[in-house]
Amino acid sequence: MVCMQATFMYGAGDVRVENVPDSVVKLPTDALVRVTASCICGSDLWPYATMPHGAGPARMGHEFVGIVEDTGSQVTTVKKGDLVVAPWLISDGTCEFCKEGLYASCVHGSMWDLQPDEGGQAEAVRVPFADGTLVRIPAGADPALLPSLLTLSDVFGTGHHAAVSGGVTAGSTVAVIGDGAVGLLAVLSARRLGAERIILMGRHKARTDLGREFGATDVVADRGAEGIEAVRALTGGHGTPIVLEAVGTRTAYDQAVGVVRGGGTISRVGVPQYEEAPVGIGSLFFRGVRLTGGAAPTRAYIDELLPEVLDGSLQPGKVFDVTTNLAGVPAGYRDMADRKSLKVLVAG
Amino acid sequence: MVCMQATFMYGAGDVRVENVPDSVVKLPTDALVRVTASCICGSDLWPYATMPHGAGPARMGHEFVGIVEDTGSQVTTVKKGDLVVAPWLISDGTCEFCKEGLYASCVHGSMWDLQPDEGGQAEAVRVPFADGTLVRIPAGADPALLPSLLTLSDVFGTGHHAAVSGGVTAGSTVAVIGDGAVGLLAVLSARRLGAERIILMGRHKARTDLGREFGATDVVADRGAEGIEAVRALTGGHGTPIVLEAVGTRTAYDQAVGVVRGGGTISRVGVPQYEEAPVGIGSLFFRGVRLTGGAAPTRAYIDELLPEVLDGSLQPGKVFDVTTNLAGVPAGYRDMADRKSLKVLVAG
Repeated sequence: MVCMQATFMYGAGDVRVENVPDSVVKLPTDALVRVTASCICGSDLWPYATMPHGAGPARMGHEFVGIVEDTGSQVTTVKKGDLVVAPWLISDGTCEFCKEGLYASCVHGSMWDLQPDEGGQAEAVRVPFADGTLVRIPAGADPALLPSLLTLSDVFGTGHHAAVSGGVTAGSTVAVIGDGAVGLLAVLSARRLGAERIILMGRHKARTDLGREFGATDVVADRGAEGIEAVRALTGGHGTPIVLEAVGTRTAYDQAVGVVRGGGTISRVGVPQYEEAPVGIGSLFFRGVRLTGGAAPTRAYIDELLPEVLDGSLQPGKVFDVTTNLAGVPAGYRDMADRKSLKVLVAG
Repeated sequence: MVCMQATFMYGAGDVRVENVPDSVVKLPTDALVRVTASCICGSDLWPYATMPHGAGPARMGHEFVGIVEDTGSQVTTVKKGDLVVAPWLISDGTCEFCKEGLYASCVHGSMWDLQPDEGGQAEAVRVPFADGTLVRIPAGADPALLPSLLTLSDVFGTGHHAAVSGGVTAGSTVAVIGDGAVGLLAVLSARRLGAERIILMGRHKARTDLGREFGATDVVADRGAEGIEAVRALTGGHGTPIVLEAVGTRTAYDQAVGVVRGGGTISRVGVPQYEEAPVGIGSLFFRGVRLTGGAAPTRAYIDELLPEVLDGSLQPGKVFDVTTNLAGVPAGYRDMADRKSLKVLVAG
């Protein structure tokens, strides 16, 4: 048995890179992808903070680009040698939901995070439903574009989903909660869709500076009541008609409820670390505030976003401030958890 | 001092009609309206069930049509003798929110229910911001249309708001939760907007029969897990892309989460009797379900709905199954609370 390296989480704070059997094609609809680049997600930090020891080990990584090395007999859309992006969701590509672009509801869908023997933070990955899951990148793409292409697997598509679900359009006024990679790419996405006023709520200057580069017109470092007050002061007292929530804590949800204008929309893409939240008369109902967003069907957006990545007019890959290799993954988790790194790219 | 009769709630189960000083114009923007017809709202039944004795007495009634009897010096859009509809919300008609049709966020807005000395279940009402609040009905309307005109104040506009906020359009498949007056008018509104499949969830046959007359194609009497299963069985296993929730209990919310299809929309117009509810990974987030609706800006819809009421092509007034007078209001509350009456009209 040949071996390769892959990342496991054993419990909070305990990430290890270990030898595992080589991933191989098992089903006719599989592809085997040799990973060129993967990364660590903000959502990986939740189990890194809270996963009980004994619940693991779990294979990690749900964002990667790579080269197809082998395909099952039924795979038709990608072939050996193709550069591909793998969205964070596995989807069959043929069910009624996939046909509507609702990949998160795919009847055969799953998450990389739920695959016991596969994960993106590894040397190679067996990709189920390769035709439905993978997206081929046109041949000849500049290797310098790899970081930006990698963001199409999750963070850029998720930021874009926030903006689209929030209804951002030409002239919109938007608040973005969170200066992590998704929040910053929500800024970029809102700007791309024509938002005129983008208020980024975050307190890490290096990040909010990148946010300004991506299109934020204002930065609010305050949180809680002061943060709400600051956004209201910037918007004639009423808050913003669109709020993109890219954190996932109850605190961030409450912040969103506080800064949204009556009749407005809160679009959430930060994975909620809560199940219940206020939605009644005192929060959403009386003021007619919509709650939208959710798990992003990033595959649905790749066709739209890819050309501007390939021609360099968008550079979402700037969210990667550290590049490491598989051996450096445990340190990458630690540095992202300590907020020393914004987002870590893992070169294959 | 001249006297008139008005309705007070003293506490749960204790509604009284008492003499009060005549309502009169006080401010230059007021109008005095002599009530032709008012009614009891499903939302009046919440305090009727739960209001602590000692918290009252509260003036009641937020839906009425009537004849303008006097106007303040600044009122320009209605005049003595006009037949008018009063929406359930008072709004100034001039602020930035009113201009966008977001009457529930009016900066000077209020609810009739919060007026200490006025209410629709009375002989006459002082109407603040008369130009912004009242809508004039064209002269010569057939008196037989009064019940249907009265529904424009709240229940029909609220059912319409549910359908509009839910995104109902030609060919939609919709579930409506609740066979009260708002639920039935949500059915009528969904049908009017072109919905093809309308599944009404309710268990009172006389009401669901009216729902069928209004356009429901299916009726599901089951609740809870059985009700969810029944709706899924009618929709290929996945539920409906649009759910209109017209009850307001947590049970109804949970029902909505259960019957909504992945990627779909829950539009709530039943006044929530809860503040917190599930919105996280296990309910809305992962499946990308939107939560919309809220307090209905019914005034915004009157212009659109009025012509079809005036020409008789829509008959939302069929939700009134009992007509009484002010003396009969306490019995009307009791019969609605006991579900003997669907909705009680109070003739002035």
